Amino acid sequence: MAFETTATIATFGGKLLKLAHQSKTTTTKMSANLFLPHSASASSPAPLLLYLAGLTCTPDNGAEKGFLHATASRHGIAILYPDTSPRGLDHPTENDAYDFGSGAGFYIDATAEPWNKGYKMESYITEELLGAVKSQFKEVDTSKASITGHSMGGHGALTLFLRHPGLFKSVSAFAPICNPSNCPWGQKAFSGYIGENKGEWAEHDATELIAKYDGETDILIDVGTGDNFYKQGQLLPEKFEEAAKKAGKKVKVRYQEGYDHSYYFISSFAQDHVEHAAKYLKA
Amino acid sequence: MAFETTATIATFGGKLLKLAHQSKTTTTKMSANLFLPHSASASSPAPLLLYLAGLTCTPDNGAEKGFLHATASRHGIAILYPDTSPRGLDHPTENDAYDFGSGAGFYIDATAEPWNKGYKMESYITEELLGAVKSQFKEVDTSKASITGHSMGGHGALTLFLRHPGLFKSVSAFAPICNPSNCPWGQKAFSGYIGENKGEWAEHDATELIAKYDGETDILIDVGTGDNFYKQGQLLPEKFEEAAKKAGKKVKVRYQEGYDHSYYFISSFAQDHVEHAAKYLKA
Repeated sequence: MAFETTATIATFGGKLLKLAHQSKTTTTKMSANLFLPHSASASSPAPLLLYLAGLTCTPDNGAEKGFLHATASRHGIAILYPDTSPRGLDHPTENDAYDFGSGAGFYIDATAEPWNKGYKMESYITEELLGAVKSQFKEVDTSKASITGHSMGGHGALTLFLRHPGLFKSVSAFAPICNPSNCPWGQKAFSGYIGENKGEWAEHDATELIAKYDGETDILIDVGTGDNFYKQGQLLPEKFEEAAKKAGKKVKVRYQEGYDHSYYFISSFAQDHVEHAAKYLKA
Repeated sequence: MAFETTATIATFGGKLLKLAHQSKTTTTKMSANLFLPHSASASSPAPLLLYLAGLTCTPDNGAEKGFLHATASRHGIAILYPDTSPRGLDHPTENDAYDFGSGAGFYIDATAEPWNKGYKMESYITEELLGAVKSQFKEVDTSKASITGHSMGGHGALTLFLRHPGLFKSVSAFAPICNPSNCPWGQKAFSGYIGENKGEWAEHDATELIAKYDGETDILIDVGTGDNFYKQGQLLPEKFEEAAKKAGKKVKVRYQEGYDHSYYFISSFAQDHVEHAAKYLKA
């Protein structure tokens, strides 16, 4: 459905639109933020970078604290910040944990009851949301889109890129959950949203997907060595690197000394990730 | 009193220290954030920029959303984020309003009861806080300090600069309250903290102070034309400009088309304000 623009905020020479629309896919009202650089116009539409946020986040976290706009503005790139789950479906336990249900949609289409009602974030983002931006914002060229994300959103960025060849020109990630089948966050999410069929889990696991990806990659990943979730084995970038190497895919994981999992980390390397996308979006 | 460092967070090549200490001036525990650029060391100490935040803020708002670190890192400048008031004194009405009491210290030393107990933010910042940084962080050179701030913190930056000649090398401000004696926020704060003696108010009003300031100035101010508080007459930058012009002082007010009062505005121009300070801190 078409977006209502609830606020227009000047920033970095462009504007941030706060959007909301009724989603057919999630059956809920969904919010999103869209940064439009000054240069964007119907006659010269901006390419688009999607930023998928992590557990507990809304569309605001990345827009307020990610500092992608400084570089996006310079390159004339629009940035789209989706929400991390449907809100207010009132499924049992939906609001009980930070890592499952509300704020934790994991960018997959749930198949298990009751989550298969509404928790369809993969379809929502790759079809409905991108379609709605395409039809409503002529100053954005969704045929030139890249994707990035943080933590659960890094998992989302990697898996949506690998599962939808051609939809995104490039992908990068900040501290992504790289091998969810083998970490507590991923196991909890996949069990709940998909059930116990490990074959289905593999279809949403970046480390499994890259092994059989039929195409070239140039994937940039940053992970902080002081990131407690990295140390606890929630992210497992080494597994992803290993699988990519075995499959002959180009993946660069940069282990950033002492950085944690926060937006202080993300903002520090935001420029590099927007530059990475710009290489492909402006090629 | 000496600081306890409650967290050390890697960011933009340097680190953000989350600090807390027991203050003699406010009689409370006070928190602050200190960004140290990578280049700072005891043998090559970094100059310091103070960032004073606005109503309702803590030391975290500017550190998380101000985007000063990107430029500060490049110039090797440390940034100090004080809190906006004492916390937890339990004066009557202390927590009743967003624009008075907790989170709204206005960077003055209160003289009226009961606020004269603890609400001494001017002395706290210019003496105790800077002194504590000087004695504890040899990698910071507090003899080279500049000051900036937002809204109430812009008022703080301008008035502390003008009231303490020589303490700060330069000053700038984002959407500052420029003439508090003539706006609702300032009148409420001054009535409560100082009482009804307008002569005393003038001692804390940037527009009054610049008229009699005995020294050169080069003051950069940004104000958004879409800022509702500007439109409501809370900021009054024109009054400050007028007084500065009459006194032959250099003040540049940039009216930024369409920008609001938020951190989306501050972050957009943060680079210019750090560059402005760098000119003087590195001279």
